Amino acid sequence: MRRLAVLTSGGDAPGMNAAIRAVVEEGLHHEIEVMGVQHGFKGLVEGEYIKLGVADVTHAIRRGGTILYSARYPEFKEEAVQKQAIKKMEENGIEGLIVIGGDGSFAGALSLTKLGFPAVGIPGTIDNDIPGTEYTIGFDSAMTAATIAIDNITDTAASHNRTFVVEVMGRNAGDIAIWAGVGTGADAIIIPEEEFFMGDIVRRVRASRQHGKDYSIIVLAEGVMGVEDFIKEYKKEAPEQSVRGVNLSHIQRGGNPTGRDRVFATLMGAKAVDLILHGQSGIYVGIIGEELAVFDIVETLEKVKHKVRDDLYELNRSLTDRY
Amino acid sequence: MRRLAVLTSGGDAPGMNAAIRAVVEEGLHHEIEVMGVQHGFKGLVEGEYIKLGVADVTHAIRRGGTILYSARYPEFKEEAVQKQAIKKMEENGIEGLIVIGGDGSFAGALSLTKLGFPAVGIPGTIDNDIPGTEYTIGFDSAMTAATIAIDNITDTAASHNRTFVVEVMGRNAGDIAIWAGVGTGADAIIIPEEEFFMGDIVRRVRASRQHGKDYSIIVLAEGVMGVEDFIKEYKKEAPEQSVRGVNLSHIQRGGNPTGRDRVFATLMGAKAVDLILHGQSGIYVGIIGEELAVFDIVETLEKVKHKVRDDLYELNRSLTDRY
Amino acid sequence: MRRLAVLTSGGDAPGMNAAIRAVVEEGLHHEIEVMGVQHGFKGLVEGEYIKLGVADVTHAIRRGGTILYSARYPEFKEEAVQKQAIKKMEENGIEGLIVIGGDGSFAGALSLTKLGFPAVGIPGTIDNDIPGTEYTIGFDSAMTAATIAIDNITDTAASHNRTFVVEVMGRNAGDIAIWAGVGTGADAIIIPEEEFFMGDIVRRVRASRQHGKDYSIIVLAEGVMGVEDFIKEYKKEAPEQSVRGVNLSHIQRGGNPTGRDRVFATLMGAKAVDLILHGQSGIYVGIIGEELAVFDIVETLEKVKHKVRDDLYELNRSLTDRY
Amino acid sequence: MRRLAVLTSGGDAPGMNAAIRAVVEEGLHHEIEVMGVQHGFKGLVEGEYIKLGVADVTHAIRRGGTILYSARYPEFKEEAVQKQAIKKMEENGIEGLIVIGGDGSFAGALSLTKLGFPAVGIPGTIDNDIPGTEYTIGFDSAMTAATIAIDNITDTAASHNRTFVVEVMGRNAGDIAIWAGVGTGADAIIIPEEEFFMGDIVRRVRASRQHGKDYSIIVLAEGVMGVEDFIKEYKKEAPEQSVRGVNLSHIQRGGNPTGRDRVFATLMGAKAVDLILHGQSGIYVGIIGEELAVFDIVETLEKVKHKVRDDLYELNRSLTDRY
Repeated sequence: MRRLAVLTSGGDAPGMNAAIRAVVEEGLHHEIEVMGVQHGFKGLVEGEYIKLGVADVTHAIRRGGTILYSARYPEFKEEAVQKQAIKKMEENGIEGLIVIGGDGSFAGALSLTKLGFPAVGIPGTIDNDIPGTEYTIGFDSAMTAATIAIDNITDTAASHNRTFVVEVMGRNAGDIAIWAGVGTGADAIIIPEEEFFMGDIVRRVRASRQHGKDYSIIVLAEGVMGVEDFIKEYKKEAPEQSVRGVNLSHIQRGGNPTGRDRVFATLMGAKAVDLILHGQSGIYVGIIGEELAVFDIVETLEKVKHKVRDDLYELNRSLTDRY
Repeated sequence: MRRLAVLTSGGDAPGMNAAIRAVVEEGLHHEIEVMGVQHGFKGLVEGEYIKLGVADVTHAIRRGGTILYSARYPEFKEEAVQKQAIKKMEENGIEGLIVIGGDGSFAGALSLTKLGFPAVGIPGTIDNDIPGTEYTIGFDSAMTAATIAIDNITDTAASHNRTFVVEVMGRNAGDIAIWAGVGTGADAIIIPEEEFFMGDIVRRVRASRQHGKDYSIIVLAEGVMGVEDFIKEYKKEAPEQSVRGVNLSHIQRGGNPTGRDRVFATLMGAKAVDLILHGQSGIYVGIIGEELAVFDIVETLEKVKHKVRDDLYELNRSLTDRY
Repeated sequence: MRRLAVLTSGGDAPGMNAAIRAVVEEGLHHEIEVMGVQHGFKGLVEGEYIKLGVADVTHAIRRGGTILYSARYPEFKEEAVQKQAIKKMEENGIEGLIVIGGDGSFAGALSLTKLGFPAVGIPGTIDNDIPGTEYTIGFDSAMTAATIAIDNITDTAASHNRTFVVEVMGRNAGDIAIWAGVGTGADAIIIPEEEFFMGDIVRRVRASRQHGKDYSIIVLAEGVMGVEDFIKEYKKEAPEQSVRGVNLSHIQRGGNPTGRDRVFATLMGAKAVDLILHGQSGIYVGIIGEELAVFDIVETLEKVKHKVRDDLYELNRSLTDRY
Repeated sequence: MRRLAVLTSGGDAPGMNAAIRAVVEEGLHHEIEVMGVQHGFKGLVEGEYIKLGVADVTHAIRRGGTILYSARYPEFKEEAVQKQAIKKMEENGIEGLIVIGGDGSFAGALSLTKLGFPAVGIPGTIDNDIPGTEYTIGFDSAMTAATIAIDNITDTAASHNRTFVVEVMGRNAGDIAIWAGVGTGADAIIIPEEEFFMGDIVRRVRASRQHGKDYSIIVLAEGVMGVEDFIKEYKKEAPEQSVRGVNLSHIQRGGNPTGRDRVFATLMGAKAVDLILHGQSGIYVGIIGEELAVFDIVETLEKVKHKVRDDLYELNRSLTDRY
């Protein structure tokens, strides 16, 4: 193999650039040229290819977002479009593709594999909701950003003895909510995977105040409901409390990646190159128990479901169940 | 004088604790005892007084919020309530009061002065909107937090070549918007003090894209309109753009104070003690041209209007007026 | 059981306070009173006990250092002193002890167990060098702090096209060096566990410059040699380079704990309470593959050796071996 | 005028890139082309010129260091070399030069002016030690970085009830020491501009401990003496204390610029363009009382001396003089 390509797809996640850099450096180590594809699958079809050398990626390791840009491109579901992409790559001497993104992006990689073109995935999404792998690029940064934002809100909450409801990202997965909630000692964590009872939450908040806590934080995953709707229902049960809502929104997505996100992104980026050089395809790289793991895209996306950390969720419930 | 009191009132602002600490340390230097009043004017009336020593405030210098708590208390407008506060202070041997807060809080301090009780103000609000002083405690921290938040949003904006409208605090004053906007190179800054034309903003954004900028940021002060309403109007003029909105909300309020906020809060806290020891009252401490200044509360609140930095606003307009 | 005690010992590590808070909250959940012992084993013997409630620990979850203080106390190796500690605890109605610290601290806990007093350990050290567990409280924060410091140094290194040698903590363990080195794309990582050849390092740095990198970073674990000595030897091989050294020293130790450190500290703190309530002793809590694990102190400290992540070390070597 | 050039010289300072960006954008606004000179005066002579457009500088506004690189070049003191630089600029159609750097760099700019070539300076140095202007690009970022580093060290100092001596930058100027010292409530600040007495410092530290402070911080400007030497002398007077030293070194130099540094850098960058377009030369832009000011290089460097903030220095002395 002489030339590889790498693209990013779906929502940007801090650490994607560290993965791109690792692909370039590991490629160089094996004397493989690496082309960056701009704007995801759209650029793949339209030939937005740029040569990537050390100088292009060396500072990117610590930058958020993706230097290769991302773009929506539903057209890539059509086989004709997929074939166009393969033709374009072949014209450019590209013999393998690394796709950094979420499970939707892996479906795109898989379609190429089915047409005979080698493609390997790397999980990149702040939501941590990809089946199989326990870790996705950007989750640690997003969780950290959410934690610090809640820290800052805590200053205001305590100053006014208020209850704050903080909406964090995670459409189908409560991972950010659970980690940021446990890490900030939230009085309640509400996630799409678990039922909740408003009366129970109000009881926990009141108990914490009786034990001398001078503020309250409730962490709400966006997949459950919007923060304004939540507060309306909450106020019905606890009219005596001063309650405010904050939606962390895009603030938790950007910013420089944490060391951990960069390290695992680097590990997975280099591994993806090695796998594709060894003729592998239709797979993605991930992390299980802090170690590298490889997953079959078809098998995993069809049969495995992402699981949140039940132990952490239960931990928070027991810690805030005070007598 | 043997004993002073200090309270915080209105919205919390990073650096208020540094001012409290300076009051305590400067008091100690003059062998004056300092009492902290909890929950603002409400606690003043109800006698929520705690003795403050070095150990109580030493770590607070770097904490956001206010360790003395704040509270709404419209009842303090009544003279009977003000007299109750004075009686309570006199019972506790307190001979002077330092009030850290916004102009509403200064009105409370003034009412005590009018009844013969010495009171001095220190400006504390993230909005920077107090007449007279060029600087208020918390503004530098809030401006910094807004700047960093916009930096993080920029990663996502650039990754997807999007336009983001970021709503920052400032009901009547565009200070946060102007500083955060200039500091992030925003394509447009919209503040309550200045008219804006949607067509002009769209023109600036488009020109910046034509010159190769891969994202756009518009900073909107909350006093103008909400971010969702703004986007609706913006999209009418620029339907081709992918636009998202973020309201920074309480995220820009909390967090550890910047060094600058701590230094000026310390300077003003110590000065307030010195002034009250010299028999002054009905005044507040502030900063003009980076130097300490003293303002008469009546004169200033009645006759002076807060002014934003026109030069910075115009600077941004000329920098984004590209040919 | 009615009353537990908790102490911190050895060097402070960010996240220790989150563990203390979890011990208090989990104790409360089981209606157990928790006493904080100040100044480690010294305070244990001298009776520096304070009652800890929710209000005492709620804000501590996000603070670095240890609110219970730490202290050196070699006297605790003597059995007479250990017995004094037990007597003091019994006088205060304390029936079990949780020790947060490094392996030296665990030896102290073990000595109490041998004398019949229940004691459980929680690993807290930024060095990550405790046998058995893959994770110790404070490592993620220290690694993150080192990573960000190297980021900042990179700005200066690149501005002047310089080589910087950055000394990080880790007397016997290269963990911080490896993670911070991989996360910043260092040209070389030098750790006590692996031999290094100066000529090889110089070759890597030169190759990276030839490929267009505009600066170089070498990460050096303190256990290998001091940064000034290293630079002297380096300059002999590479006299043409402009080289500077920085010792990150205590800057990497303090500061607010990361979300990850808080989450695992919370998990281990709660688990330690549960174990001691179930009559366990002479053990410590840890993490294997991101899951809770329990280790026998004697068995583990005697027979297991801490291992650094060889895969990450080798990853960096292959990424910087450019052709 | 059709074409300008801009260079950075001397030590890098956060915010230099914001100034470069402002030069480019303000140039564009006046339909002037801006060339970036790489590697300071060395590149000026050797013709390392690159065209700078919006896309080249837009993300740089938030980056530390200098994208144009800096370099030592004592040869520029020779008139022959200066003439070479002018010839090179003229060959490239460059009609004016903006120099961002310290007073050494301004001397370089002045020498061009004397030979008839228009040159204007912008003060960029973290030390804040340029005569005339009250503000230099990078000072706010460096002061902030030093403040946060001392915050982190405070966690460790308090955990072990230690005294830490922290060496900060400032060869001839105590500005960083004073601001970081006041902002962290340091027990003593030692600067080159003021004599100090070890016995007095020890007295202040002891008094603070007697009042219940659980740690001590002494901030030492590098221009006074090295931290290790200081500790040796300190220990003679206070043998009972546990003392540690940290040299913040390059950690305080790099990192993203603060909002304030970016705003003033932007203001000065645009102003420098306007001045040079109006035929001005031999001057530099600065800030007095938070407003733009213009200084004659000869007059100012010869007759004015930089002054530290005496009021802040004295403030700290009175706050730590406890009874």
